[in-house]
Amino acid sequence: MKKIKMILDCDTGHDDAIALMVASKHPDIELLGVTVVAGNSTLDKTLPNTLHVVQHLGLDVPVYGGMAKPIVKAQEVADDVHGKSGLDGPVFDELKIKAQDEHAVNYLIRTLMESDGDITLVPVGPLTNIAMAMLMEPEIVKKIRRIVLMGGAVGIGNSTPSAEFNIYVDPEAAHIVFSSGVEIAMMPLDLTNTALADEKVIERMANIGNKAGQLFADIMSFTLHSQAVNGLSAGPVHDVTAVTYLVAPELYETKKMHVDIDLSKGPSYGRTVCDINDRFHLDKNVTVGLKIDLERFWDLVEDVLRRHI
Amino acid sequence: MKKIKMILDCDTGHDDAIALMVASKHPDIELLGVTVVAGNSTLDKTLPNTLHVVQHLGLDVPVYGGMAKPIVKAQEVADDVHGKSGLDGPVFDELKIKAQDEHAVNYLIRTLMESDGDITLVPVGPLTNIAMAMLMEPEIVKKIRRIVLMGGAVGIGNSTPSAEFNIYVDPEAAHIVFSSGVEIAMMPLDLTNTALADEKVIERMANIGNKAGQLFADIMSFTLHSQAVNGLSAGPVHDVTAVTYLVAPELYETKKMHVDIDLSKGPSYGRTVCDINDRFHLDKNVTVGLKIDLERFWDLVEDVLRRHI
Amino acid sequence: MKKIKMILDCDTGHDDAIALMVASKHPDIELLGVTVVAGNSTLDKTLPNTLHVVQHLGLDVPVYGGMAKPIVKAQEVADDVHGKSGLDGPVFDELKIKAQDEHAVNYLIRTLMESDGDITLVPVGPLTNIAMAMLMEPEIVKKIRRIVLMGGAVGIGNSTPSAEFNIYVDPEAAHIVFSSGVEIAMMPLDLTNTALADEKVIERMANIGNKAGQLFADIMSFTLHSQAVNGLSAGPVHDVTAVTYLVAPELYETKKMHVDIDLSKGPSYGRTVCDINDRFHLDKNVTVGLKIDLERFWDLVEDVLRRHI
Amino acid sequence: MKKIKMILDCDTGHDDAIALMVASKHPDIELLGVTVVAGNSTLDKTLPNTLHVVQHLGLDVPVYGGMAKPIVKAQEVADDVHGKSGLDGPVFDELKIKAQDEHAVNYLIRTLMESDGDITLVPVGPLTNIAMAMLMEPEIVKKIRRIVLMGGAVGIGNSTPSAEFNIYVDPEAAHIVFSSGVEIAMMPLDLTNTALADEKVIERMANIGNKAGQLFADIMSFTLHSQAVNGLSAGPVHDVTAVTYLVAPELYETKKMHVDIDLSKGPSYGRTVCDINDRFHLDKNVTVGLKIDLERFWDLVEDVLRRHI
Repeated sequence: MKKIKMILDCDTGHDDAIALMVASKHPDIELLGVTVVAGNSTLDKTLPNTLHVVQHLGLDVPVYGGMAKPIVKAQEVADDVHGKSGLDGPVFDELKIKAQDEHAVNYLIRTLMESDGDITLVPVGPLTNIAMAMLMEPEIVKKIRRIVLMGGAVGIGNSTPSAEFNIYVDPEAAHIVFSSGVEIAMMPLDLTNTALADEKVIERMANIGNKAGQLFADIMSFTLHSQAVNGLSAGPVHDVTAVTYLVAPELYETKKMHVDIDLSKGPSYGRTVCDINDRFHLDKNVTVGLKIDLERFWDLVEDVLRRHI
Repeated sequence: MKKIKMILDCDTGHDDAIALMVASKHPDIELLGVTVVAGNSTLDKTLPNTLHVVQHLGLDVPVYGGMAKPIVKAQEVADDVHGKSGLDGPVFDELKIKAQDEHAVNYLIRTLMESDGDITLVPVGPLTNIAMAMLMEPEIVKKIRRIVLMGGAVGIGNSTPSAEFNIYVDPEAAHIVFSSGVEIAMMPLDLTNTALADEKVIERMANIGNKAGQLFADIMSFTLHSQAVNGLSAGPVHDVTAVTYLVAPELYETKKMHVDIDLSKGPSYGRTVCDINDRFHLDKNVTVGLKIDLERFWDLVEDVLRRHI
Repeated sequence: MKKIKMILDCDTGHDDAIALMVASKHPDIELLGVTVVAGNSTLDKTLPNTLHVVQHLGLDVPVYGGMAKPIVKAQEVADDVHGKSGLDGPVFDELKIKAQDEHAVNYLIRTLMESDGDITLVPVGPLTNIAMAMLMEPEIVKKIRRIVLMGGAVGIGNSTPSAEFNIYVDPEAAHIVFSSGVEIAMMPLDLTNTALADEKVIERMANIGNKAGQLFADIMSFTLHSQAVNGLSAGPVHDVTAVTYLVAPELYETKKMHVDIDLSKGPSYGRTVCDINDRFHLDKNVTVGLKIDLERFWDLVEDVLRRHI
Repeated sequence: MKKIKMILDCDTGHDDAIALMVASKHPDIELLGVTVVAGNSTLDKTLPNTLHVVQHLGLDVPVYGGMAKPIVKAQEVADDVHGKSGLDGPVFDELKIKAQDEHAVNYLIRTLMESDGDITLVPVGPLTNIAMAMLMEPEIVKKIRRIVLMGGAVGIGNSTPSAEFNIYVDPEAAHIVFSSGVEIAMMPLDLTNTALADEKVIERMANIGNKAGQLFADIMSFTLHSQAVNGLSAGPVHDVTAVTYLVAPELYETKKMHVDIDLSKGPSYGRTVCDINDRFHLDKNVTVGLKIDLERFWDLVEDVLRRHI
C-alpha cells in the first residue's frame, strides 16, 4: 500500500504536539512538511514550539512559518488553555534547528502545484495558511487530495457558545476553505471533546518508556489542569483525531452534510453551521465526524508513540 | 395554596392544543386568558384552531387574537409539521364561539397593568404578542411575575441548524423579551424533543375515555407521522413542557445562563445563543430546562386530561 | 378645494414646533391630531413640549402620546441639538392642557380604520409610532392616503456619516414603513439642510408681531447657536419642509427612486440607501425631495405664521 | 529633487491606462513596477491590457500579475463600463512582452522589505494585492512610505448607492489596508467624477500628435459612450487623479478624516464611511480629496503625455 502524503498545518499547542507525534511516525503516513500558523498562541510561540517538538523527538521534517494574523478578524489566542509559552508543561533543550526560509503559504502553493494531486492537508489550527494559499493560487484547489481538519462544532462551541476556537479565530479563512469545493472531513468539538486523556491514559503512554511517551505525559498533564476551567476532568487531544481519521476512518461514525461558516459579526460569528438534519437542502460539502471508537483510538496512538525514540 | 395566574400565548398548532388542555384544567393554575399569535400557521388559522379546542372541550376562557406578522422578519410558517389547517388530524364541529374584540396586545397590557404583578405569561409560539405589549407599554415589564416559554435550542435547531422555530420566526421579538429584565424560564428544543408521544403514550391517553384523551390521540397521531420527516419516531409535545414546568419544576433539571438572541441576518439568525459554559461572563438572564423526568411528566399530563370532559 | 386631512407625528423639538405651527394654520390643511414619539428627546419631554406649543398658540387639536422607545435599537437622543428640555429657548407658561388618554398607536389605527382612506401621515421624527400601528393592524396600510416625512439622507448623514437622525434612531421602524407599500414622499437631510433660518429669517418672522412669529424667533435663535457646532451659521427647519411639501409640491424638485433601510449593525446602520442612479433596478418606492425653492418656502411659512395669534 | 518612487497597482481598464501613461513619464516619478489585480475585469484581461499599454508606448517597466479574486466577497466586474475586453476602444498589435514570473504580492513584499521605506503605493483598483501583501508580511506596513489611492465615495457610490466600485469589489481588502496604520490619501468618486474628459479634452490630447495622445483619445472616446448610460456627457479619468495628487497636491482641496469600511453584508457593504463631520471622534486615518483644480490638472496631464512617443 502506498503511504498517504500529508502536510500538517498546526499551531502547537498541546494537542498539536501529539498530532505531530502521530503524523510523523505512523507507518501509513508520509509527512512531507509541517506548516505553522498563529492560533493557540502567536506565531512567535507556535513556530518555536513546533520546532521544539521536532528537535526533541529527532524528527526529519521541514517546518515552515506561516500567517501571523487572521485575515479579517482581530487576533485572539488561547492563553487560558495553553499557558504563557503556548505549550506549557514540557521542558525542552535550547532550540538548535530552524524553520525553512520559505513562507508556509508559498511552500503550500509550490508543493501542491508540483504534486500529482495526491497530498492531503491536515490543518489542526485556524485555517489562515490554507485559505491564503487558495487565494494566492486558486489552482491549488484542484491539486489538494483532501482536507482533514480539526475544528468547528455541531452543537456547542468553546470560544463562544456558538463557535469552536480554530474556526472562531479566523472565520473568513474557514469560509474560504469550506466553500472552495475541496473534499473536507471535519472532526468537530462534539467528537474531540470525547477523546480525553485522563490520568490513566497519561500513565499508559508514560509507561511506554520512551521520549515520546514521556512528552505525551508532560503535555497532557498540563492540559489536565488547564482544562479544569472548562469543567473537564481530563484533557482532550482534539487535533490527534484528524490525523487518526486519515489512517483509520473505520474508527469513526460520520455523516455528510452542508457546513456553512457564520460570517455575521453577531454572537454566532465563526460558527460552523452544520446542517445535520438537511434543513437547507444544500450540497453536502463536509464529512463530519460524530463518534469515535475510543478504545481503538488510544491503541492506535500508543502504537505510534512506541515507534518514536 | 393560591393558584398560579397565567395567560397562555399560543399559535395552535398541535402541541399548543395539548398545552391548552393542561393549562385549562390543572388544579394549581388559574388560566386568565388565551392570546393567539401567528406562528405554526397564519393567524387566520391559529385563532380558529384555538377556538375549536376551547369549544370542543367546553372551556370557559376568553381568547384574544393578536399579531398576524413578525415585527421585522418576513413571515414563515410550519405547514410541513402542522398541515394545511395548522391543526390537521382532529375533526371539529362548526365553530360557534368567537374571539374577544380586544387585540391580544391591548389585553395583555390592560390585564397586566390592572394586576398585582402576580401573572405569569406562558408563550409557546413566537414572542411577537409579548414583545409588542412590552413596546407599547414598557411599564408591564415590572408587572409580569415571570415568563415560562417553549422555544430556542442550546445545541441544534429545527428551523435552521442554528435556530428553533418559535424564536426563528420572530428573532427581534425574542430579543425584546429576552433583554427586558423579566424573569424567564425557557424550555428549549434539546429538552422538548425528548418529550415524545409515541404510540404507547397516545394509546394511554385515548384509554382515559373522555373527549380530552381522544383529542390528544387525534392530535398526536397526526404529529407522529408529520414528524417522521424530521427523523423522529414519535411526536414531541414541546409546548406542554412549559406549562408543566410552572406547576412541577421539580421534574426538571435546569441551569441559569446568559441567553442572547442572534439578530444577525447570517445563517444563525434567530439562534438562542445559550452561554451554558459561561464563556462571556454576562448576567444569567434565563433559567434553561436541560432534562425532564418523563415518567412523572406523562403521569401529570394524564392526571390533568382526566379532569376534562 | 377640499382640505388635506393630516396627522402630524412629531418629537418636539425645535423644527417640530415650527412644523406644527404651519400644519395647524395652513388653510389647505385639516390637522386631525398630533401624535408624539420619543426622538429628539425622551417621550416625557417631547410630549409636554408638544402640549406647550399647542397651549401657547391656543391650538385646537388633540395630542396623543406614543412610543417611548425604538422597536429594536437602544434609544439615543439629540440633547446636543435640542438642549436639556428637548426644546430649549422659548419660555412657556405652566402646562394646563393634557394629552388624550388613548395611546398614539391605537389612535392612529382607529382613525385610519374609520376613515375613507383620505388621511396623510406626516411623521417628522422616528417612525416608531407609524410602524407600530402598521404591525398592530396591517389593514391600515391600505387606508393611509400617503406618508410625507422628514428623514434620511441621500448623501451624508448627521447622526453618523451614513445615517440621518430620525431614521438612525429607529431603523427597524423605518424599514417597516418603507417596505409597507404605502406611497411615500421623503424630505432628506440633503434638502432640509438648505432650509436655514438665519438671523434675517428670524428677524422677518419676529417682525410679524404675533405670538407665533415670536415663538419662531425664540426657537430658531436657540438652534442658531446649538447648530453652530456643526459649522452652520443658521438653524435648519428640517421638519417644516415635509408639511409645506404637502401643500406646495411645486416648490420642490423631486425624483422617484428605490429607498432601502440599512438594517445591518455595521457603520451604516440606519442609512436610507437611496438608489438615485437606479443601480439596483428595484421598485421606485419613494419620492425624494432634492431641491426646494427657498424664497417661496419662506414666503409660505411667513404667510401661515401670520394666521396665528 | 529626488524622484518619488512608486508602484502602480491597477486593473487596466480605461482610466488605469491613462494613469499608467502619467505615472510612467512624469519627471518627478520613478515608476518601479506595475502590479495588476482583477477588478474592472478578470485578471486574464487586466493583465494583458496592462501589457498592451506598456508595449504600445514602449515603456520600460516590469509588470506583475496578482490576485485573481477578492479575499472574501464573490467576484464582480464592470463590463458595462469597460467593455468585453476590459479596455474596449483602442486596437493594439499582437502582444509580444510578458509579465514577470513573480506573483505581484511577493513582488510587493520583496521590494518593500528591501527598500529604505521610500516607496509609495498607488492602487487604482481593488485593494486585494496590497491587502494580501500586508497579510503575508505584516512588516511591510512600516516600509510603505504612503498609499495614494483612487476609490471610495464620501456621498453616493457607483456600484451601489452606498459603495464605489474599487472598494465594493473587495471590502475586506479595503478594511485591511484602511486599518493598517499606513498613511493614506484617497481620491473618492465625489472628486474623480468631476475629472471628465469631454470631447474638447479628447481633441486636445489627440492634437498632441503622438502615440500617447492618440491612445488617450481612443480610450476616452469609448468611455464617453459607455458612461453615457450613467447620464454623463463625458468620461471620468478617475485613476489619474491619484497619480497627479502624488506630484501636485497643491491642485487639491483635501480634508483629513476617519474612514471606516462597511463590512456588513447589508445594502451598504463596501461603503467607505467617511466621517467628514467628525461625528465619531475617531483617529483621522485618511486624507480625502474633496476638490481638484481641473484646469491645472488637464495641463499637467497634457504635459506628461507630450513626453511619450
